[in-house]
Amino acid sequence: MTAKKAVVLLSGGLDSATCLAIASSQGYDCYAMSFDYGQRHESELAAALRVVGALGAKDFKTIRINMGDIGGSALTDSNIAVPELPTEGIPVTYVPARNTVFLSLALGWAEVLDADAIFIGVNAVDYSGYPDCRPEFIAAFEHLSNVATKKGVEGRPLIIKAPLLTLSKGEIIRKGIELGVDYSLTVSCYQADHNGLACGRCDSCRLRSEGFKQAGVTDPTQYQ
Amino acid sequence: MTAKKAVVLLSGGLDSATCLAIASSQGYDCYAMSFDYGQRHESELAAALRVVGALGAKDFKTIRINMGDIGGSALTDSNIAVPELPTEGIPVTYVPARNTVFLSLALGWAEVLDADAIFIGVNAVDYSGYPDCRPEFIAAFEHLSNVATKKGVEGRPLIIKAPLLTLSKGEIIRKGIELGVDYSLTVSCYQADHNGLACGRCDSCRLRSEGFKQAGVTDPTQYQ
Repeated sequence: MTAKKAVVLLSGGLDSATCLAIASSQGYDCYAMSFDYGQRHESELAAALRVVGALGAKDFKTIRINMGDIGGSALTDSNIAVPELPTEGIPVTYVPARNTVFLSLALGWAEVLDADAIFIGVNAVDYSGYPDCRPEFIAAFEHLSNVATKKGVEGRPLIIKAPLLTLSKGEIIRKGIELGVDYSLTVSCYQADHNGLACGRCDSCRLRSEGFKQAGVTDPTQYQ
Repeated sequence: MTAKKAVVLLSGGLDSATCLAIASSQGYDCYAMSFDYGQRHESELAAALRVVGALGAKDFKTIRINMGDIGGSALTDSNIAVPELPTEGIPVTYVPARNTVFLSLALGWAEVLDADAIFIGVNAVDYSGYPDCRPEFIAAFEHLSNVATKKGVEGRPLIIKAPLLTLSKGEIIRKGIELGVDYSLTVSCYQADHNGLACGRCDSCRLRSEGFKQAGVTDPTQYQ
């Protein structure tokens, strides 16, 4: 019997690294996929490479797509500042349709590979209030996948797995440590410097730091 | 009252040119979006520019994304030949998840613009058997759009319009001519040369040529 295959979206952050470890632990051959999408935090990509090196994957692809051409987010538009205080509602760091775009490209690769699943590390608990991190979104994308593709039409459904969806940041970290994830390799900061050192002030840094406290684990993040 | 806004996917082919003319005729301010996705038929992009020049649009963006990195299609992989005879089932010219990827990026732009609709020129009658050209696909993407985005979550739904969905190629051409589309500007061929001259033999050329016959209109296509 051949192993099950999964495309795993990998940003280089804490959540997606944990997601890759979970996919491997479930017996999937993992095909990791990262995006160079004009994000401010390029050091994420270097982190994704380190994570693949440490956890392993059958293949690793970085797709270049300039989402900055579309604009509208502090993560891709240098004219919009990354906020350092919590904000109400959906924050300016939200990249319009980002997870939809990433999952679409993962869907294309999944079809080519004839993969069984796509893993995405979205989380609806300690998250930043993005609409494309909710269970309704994952369910809608799974339905779309199975009407959009040759594979789905031919009756070989694809599962969208979001194993972190209902976990707290602390639970994610405990799960990852159990599976051997080295979080010092990951970068979560929205404005990390070129060496991957975190600002310690943005929303993403705050959630991450609280997560290590919740998990009762020493925070291995290197700050600027 | 401000005009309604629509993002219109524009390939430079016959269908999407008609779609742009229909969106304009329905009173939308049109924002045309093309993709440089590693397709063999680059002359499509030159055609998209000519079509925007002739029909007009508020803005026009070309997004570069190399779908050839994913592979799996005769349109993006020079190792897979474009077939010149009709084939059974889903043909090798199918690009995995292409319309899902294009609509996802259109969704991102629609959110930034606060647009009311996205127009896509897919067609389920005289089509090539692609799963992402069917009504189920359009309905699934519309549902996804409204759970995936800030706009949808805030109760301002986006409509996915596929006005050609149930038209025959002949009906599409008659509609376009009524709206003033100059089809000599468009390129449909999967393997057009650099001057936009069509092969006259691929599936897309065959459907197009039959369409002009059905419509009772002289075919303005320039063949090699």
